[in-house]
Amino acid sequence: MEAKIAIQGILGSFHHQVAQEYYEQNVVVDECLSFEELVDSLLSGKSDQAVMAIENSIAGPIIPNYALIDKNNLHIIGEHYLNISQNLMALKGQDLADIVEVHSHPMALLQCMDFLKKYPNIKLVEDKDTAETARRIQQKQLKGIAAIASNAASVMYDLEILAPGIQTIKNNMTRFVIIKKENAFVPKDDINRASIKFELDHKRGSLAAVLNVMSDCKMNLTKIQSLPKIEMPWKYSFFVDVTFDKYEDYQKAKSLLEIMAEYFKVLGEYKNTKP
Amino acid sequence: MEAKIAIQGILGSFHHQVAQEYYEQNVVVDECLSFEELVDSLLSGKSDQAVMAIENSIAGPIIPNYALIDKNNLHIIGEHYLNISQNLMALKGQDLADIVEVHSHPMALLQCMDFLKKYPNIKLVEDKDTAETARRIQQKQLKGIAAIASNAASVMYDLEILAPGIQTIKNNMTRFVIIKKENAFVPKDDINRASIKFELDHKRGSLAAVLNVMSDCKMNLTKIQSLPKIEMPWKYSFFVDVTFDKYEDYQKAKSLLEIMAEYFKVLGEYKNTKP
Repeated sequence: MEAKIAIQGILGSFHHQVAQEYYEQNVVVDECLSFEELVDSLLSGKSDQAVMAIENSIAGPIIPNYALIDKNNLHIIGEHYLNISQNLMALKGQDLADIVEVHSHPMALLQCMDFLKKYPNIKLVEDKDTAETARRIQQKQLKGIAAIASNAASVMYDLEILAPGIQTIKNNMTRFVIIKKENAFVPKDDINRASIKFELDHKRGSLAAVLNVMSDCKMNLTKIQSLPKIEMPWKYSFFVDVTFDKYEDYQKAKSLLEIMAEYFKVLGEYKNTKP
Repeated sequence: MEAKIAIQGILGSFHHQVAQEYYEQNVVVDECLSFEELVDSLLSGKSDQAVMAIENSIAGPIIPNYALIDKNNLHIIGEHYLNISQNLMALKGQDLADIVEVHSHPMALLQCMDFLKKYPNIKLVEDKDTAETARRIQQKQLKGIAAIASNAASVMYDLEILAPGIQTIKNNMTRFVIIKKENAFVPKDDINRASIKFELDHKRGSLAAVLNVMSDCKMNLTKIQSLPKIEMPWKYSFFVDVTFDKYEDYQKAKSLLEIMAEYFKVLGEYKNTKP
């Protein structure tokens, strides 16, 4: 039986590209038009695993996705990095001078702002999904409208690339996580990265004390973020990512954190694949 | 001469409400339809100061706005907290039973979903801006259509509130910062909060060491966030907010940070106004 993988977006999206690269075997994809829908696909058992963008080398963490994983008690079982290249595309035969509107996801528009500023007459329209816009242009034969989307989308929906690689910052890497409803068995020897969440009392220095312990246990901190607790304005949880060489060191850090923190939870233990 | 203040959105928006509450005297407002436009208004000298949402008690930090402040070397000179209350409003004389469509920003619709679910016959229509919808209802005398917007918008556009405070989570506080191109002179006695940014070497424990020093200097950390460095994937800067009682303690912490950090920058020193 083929595994069913939920992706955010449709065929030709960056999430789809990650699914193709991450899973060695062929997978069946469940196209979800929002991250909420993607989580529902996992929770309802419609999908076995999901691919979810979590952090971008330019824009930083995708905060609501951390909250979705946390709130629904999902498990991170892996990660994948993708270099994001954005392209301006339209129906074949259209020229850059024909374009009056560019539709894309707000994040994609933002990433290409330097390019787009050179064309002040082109109206920017925020849309839900990059690949979906590409598909709609083809389906409805929309002239004068361009999409900003992946190479894969231009092939999938037979559009012509009017300008390739138009993102301002060329080195634009996105980190995706692979999530699951139940925790998967990842062999301990393969685990060298973990995503954890904890809450501390409000004494001055409590975060420093926790980070000291983590440093003593040879944890390398790769991300830290305080997030407000819903319904408790300005009380914070900390979301931290660590990498480590030995699982035993991490186990020791976990034991100490369980004692020191008011609340402690593991979001996932998995293999670091940072290129 | 009246000060000119850039706001995100139009008259009647939550940014406008903050401008009205924050500035004691009357101010002239520059309506900006994006945060980029707001920054341009400051940089070009069109506005003297700007009001910018920076953090929400539910959704967390507005990451791109931190990047905008940092990249353009703007200065935070103050802050203001606003409890976001959403209201359903329509032309005077209209009744809840008359309403067939509700127009608002997707985020506002989402915040009020529990209320809206009670009226399955009312169609939800996504719109660009909450206050702009209120204005259009008045200008075009649209019957049967309600907006979800601020109290200020109902006053400004002479609409009647059909249902007040309809957001699901009642305690929905947003923190706004007041920003300026040049640093303003804030008297030292009034300063008890600072927003700083620093970069560290990649030795294990360097963040813990810095936080220890800050704790020793009696700094209370209220926010911490690692953000990737543009063009240097997976190298991080830390954005930290601290509060303190004595400016001298903060000065000491600054001197130590300048020595310990590879890079250190103050985004703003100002008065903590957290309610």
